[in-house]
Amino acid sequence: MSYAALTDEIATVNDLLNAASVLTWDSRTMMPQGGSATRGNQIATLMVLAQERLVSGNTRKALEKAEAETASLDSEDPKRAAVAAIGAAIAYHAKIPAELLRRKAELRTTAQTVWAKARAEKDFGMFSPYLEQTIALQREFAEAIGYAAHPYDALVALYEPGETAASLRGLFAKLREGIQPLLRAVQAAEDPPSEFLHREFPEELQRDFALKLAGKIGYDMNRGRLDKTVHPFEVSFTRNDVRITTKYLRDYLPPALFGTLHEAGHGIYEQNVDPELTRTVFATDLLGLYAVGGTSYGAHESQSRLYENHIGRSRGFWDLHFSSLQATFPEALAGITAEGFHRAVNRVRPGFIRIEADELTYDMHIMLRVELEIRLMEGSLAVRDLPEAWRAAIKADLGLEVPDDARGVLQDIHWSSGTVGSFSAYTIGNVMAAQLMQTMRSDKPEVAAATDQGDYAPLRGWLTEAVHRHGRRHSRDTLLQRATGRPLDPAPYLDYLNAKYRDIYRLPLPA
Amino acid sequence: MSYAALTDEIATVNDLLNAASVLTWDSRTMMPQGGSATRGNQIATLMVLAQERLVSGNTRKALEKAEAETASLDSEDPKRAAVAAIGAAIAYHAKIPAELLRRKAELRTTAQTVWAKARAEKDFGMFSPYLEQTIALQREFAEAIGYAAHPYDALVALYEPGETAASLRGLFAKLREGIQPLLRAVQAAEDPPSEFLHREFPEELQRDFALKLAGKIGYDMNRGRLDKTVHPFEVSFTRNDVRITTKYLRDYLPPALFGTLHEAGHGIYEQNVDPELTRTVFATDLLGLYAVGGTSYGAHESQSRLYENHIGRSRGFWDLHFSSLQATFPEALAGITAEGFHRAVNRVRPGFIRIEADELTYDMHIMLRVELEIRLMEGSLAVRDLPEAWRAAIKADLGLEVPDDARGVLQDIHWSSGTVGSFSAYTIGNVMAAQLMQTMRSDKPEVAAATDQGDYAPLRGWLTEAVHRHGRRHSRDTLLQRATGRPLDPAPYLDYLNAKYRDIYRLPLPA
Repeated sequence: MSYAALTDEIATVNDLLNAASVLTWDSRTMMPQGGSATRGNQIATLMVLAQERLVSGNTRKALEKAEAETASLDSEDPKRAAVAAIGAAIAYHAKIPAELLRRKAELRTTAQTVWAKARAEKDFGMFSPYLEQTIALQREFAEAIGYAAHPYDALVALYEPGETAASLRGLFAKLREGIQPLLRAVQAAEDPPSEFLHREFPEELQRDFALKLAGKIGYDMNRGRLDKTVHPFEVSFTRNDVRITTKYLRDYLPPALFGTLHEAGHGIYEQNVDPELTRTVFATDLLGLYAVGGTSYGAHESQSRLYENHIGRSRGFWDLHFSSLQATFPEALAGITAEGFHRAVNRVRPGFIRIEADELTYDMHIMLRVELEIRLMEGSLAVRDLPEAWRAAIKADLGLEVPDDARGVLQDIHWSSGTVGSFSAYTIGNVMAAQLMQTMRSDKPEVAAATDQGDYAPLRGWLTEAVHRHGRRHSRDTLLQRATGRPLDPAPYLDYLNAKYRDIYRLPLPA
Repeated sequence: MSYAALTDEIATVNDLLNAASVLTWDSRTMMPQGGSATRGNQIATLMVLAQERLVSGNTRKALEKAEAETASLDSEDPKRAAVAAIGAAIAYHAKIPAELLRRKAELRTTAQTVWAKARAEKDFGMFSPYLEQTIALQREFAEAIGYAAHPYDALVALYEPGETAASLRGLFAKLREGIQPLLRAVQAAEDPPSEFLHREFPEELQRDFALKLAGKIGYDMNRGRLDKTVHPFEVSFTRNDVRITTKYLRDYLPPALFGTLHEAGHGIYEQNVDPELTRTVFATDLLGLYAVGGTSYGAHESQSRLYENHIGRSRGFWDLHFSSLQATFPEALAGITAEGFHRAVNRVRPGFIRIEADELTYDMHIMLRVELEIRLMEGSLAVRDLPEAWRAAIKADLGLEVPDDARGVLQDIHWSSGTVGSFSAYTIGNVMAAQLMQTMRSDKPEVAAATDQGDYAPLRGWLTEAVHRHGRRHSRDTLLQRATGRPLDPAPYLDYLNAKYRDIYRLPLPA
């Protein structure tokens, strides 16, 4: 009965983390302004109780008994795997001193306020002392967790287990080598016309169309809902309730369309985790104390990017759906063709802001952040030298002069909220998405054919089998190994970018 | 430091109960259908953890120390009062065996399903065995809690502390004696025309107008929001976030208008609890494990009924606001006067359904339920004889023949959800509202004058001082004693009903 006692405790922890996510969702979509005064207490209490429960004497005792009970099982047995995962989470939390967590939380509160002010006033100097404290604290944190080669390794493992500073540097070198020549060729070519994307698009019509697209690709509204937020996100409170948000710009159509497909991709992942895993260790991040069923941040991003880009920004998608889009916005899209629309929404334009970047320059924004984080953590870059290093990287990768720190080093909220080590997920998601799609197209021609004809159910079925249903049961590379025969590999992504942008920009194929 | 340790524990319990309320609100307004599969677990976990925390060894130890620490303080000292209230809650929970709670929860799950089916099929016999079990279980529950005179006393004390079977029987005798002759006189008189209330009223316009009224009487939208539900309710997650819901019938205007004023009245109570009481024992019901700041269900109902009826259904209110309502619905209300509208929304029509009852017959529905509950609990009425007793009471009080049990004994959800003892709150609310209003009008002419001129801030200020700000710090009768010089007294309510309906129905004043 001790295995059952242990899983009961983990079910309770799941409930607490899911409840915390409901309160967070509510605070970003529904809560009246005045509610913020006490909502913070409520969310904090749920997180603290989840952690207390996880490391309590009761849970540890149940763990010991469950370990003994399952010791004779095969190492791949789900029960033994669950016990091992719970044991690892408990061991992790046992390593983190409570006072370190307290200092982290305290610093975050101040640092975020100062960062928002510093960004508004374009004044890195104001934020600099807080970033110095953040980096110092993250080093302490890394020391507490432990690592083999580099302090960054301890942090990145929280978001992307298996990756290290060294592995990311290796991956990034290949990506830069592949993307840079393509980017230069694209920049030398003529841009497709895209002015029409800035016409009038009534919000209600954007919403209806985005929702129709989300449903088409397989996001289940019976277990989901779409709301409006300034910063779109996806959140789940078990696979039975997986919500997404988006934003609508009246005078620019792409964010609602592709943002909704992106978040729906995240949502499809969560909605298709095996129901057997609900309220188990494989349905929640016990290290980060966050209710998420995807196995890593990169794996999650692979599903959102896959639906946003490989499906949503593909020529085939608009060949099928553009006439319906045009019927929705007959004036704004008068005279535009599916081809013209597809080229316009894939227009490449290097810029300063990560979240506005196109598919070809996006990874440059990620790689520079990860590289700077690694150097800050190892001490080879001082916080005071960070803005200059940032400007140099943007100049080198995108050929742009950063005009001020608000459009440079101060643009992201991550560091001010005490998050260091998470950025690589976006690029890993891009790489993983392409790797999965390449395998699907070569191994499953019938799935590819259905997808090309606008029937997205077989694709979802294939992704569910390969990725979604496993929740956090297997690592990202285990999933990739099983599905594609190899761990993470940047080659399919570079192939994809080359084929796509050579077509859109009408470039000659490389010799 | 043990007083602080104790209040920390109670703050945590508050956070858990507030979080449970957020999840409940969400489940009734926002949650996709599929979410119900796991939402129940989440809410149950939060409630169980709240209770565990309350009766844990840590909390008990902190209580003992806090009792010692505060023993020398004056009995009215807020700290000592808080410690006493926490001690009483812990003592209460210690009396309830866990297996009894478990059986109660299990029975509720089945009983509600059976009740819904029985009501749809108008078949009391189907529900009868579950009601028998419910009454048996409620008797066990009453025995566990303990009582002096009557098992019903243990139950009513959970909702309306201070009331007993005997006190309610006494109150009801006076109310029947006062209301029955008036009701007969009204029934003999000519009904005011009210057909126009059944014209077309677009939902969006109803919502805007209802929201405007709620704001006018003092419901603060910066700490609130209004949503749509089938069964309207109010819920708070601290005074900083107090939400209400309403319903809209396209072809009948009153429910949205008066329902919104009703729920806004509840909301105004919660929004005006002293901020010092936030997250304390005086901001939550530790016995019922429900986050509510009002001191009793009846006191809460007094505020909703006050704003719905004494303000919203008064002639003065429509003299001020009818022209604006008419401008909102110019076609439906063409040719109607403020007087005609006021008379129409106060039309008396005895009926079978409690929630559709007018102000004059509403208490009849309540009194018969309470009287039947008392007899069921003492065993002087068997469950199998309940439908007949119900029919007899409706016949005696309202002169109607109940056509079927769906419009009789099966109409309310309360008993199927294991709630016995709560019904009197509605009538006590009516009585308390009139008592407060009578005192306000006699003692505070400047508040009365402002109210009559459509400035509702002074009224809210007076009610906040007399009732709202105290949260659960003082009993209902203590509040009434301080504000009106006496405990609950039905005379002002009977005076109010007589004056109101004699005016509307143009009856002669009694000799």
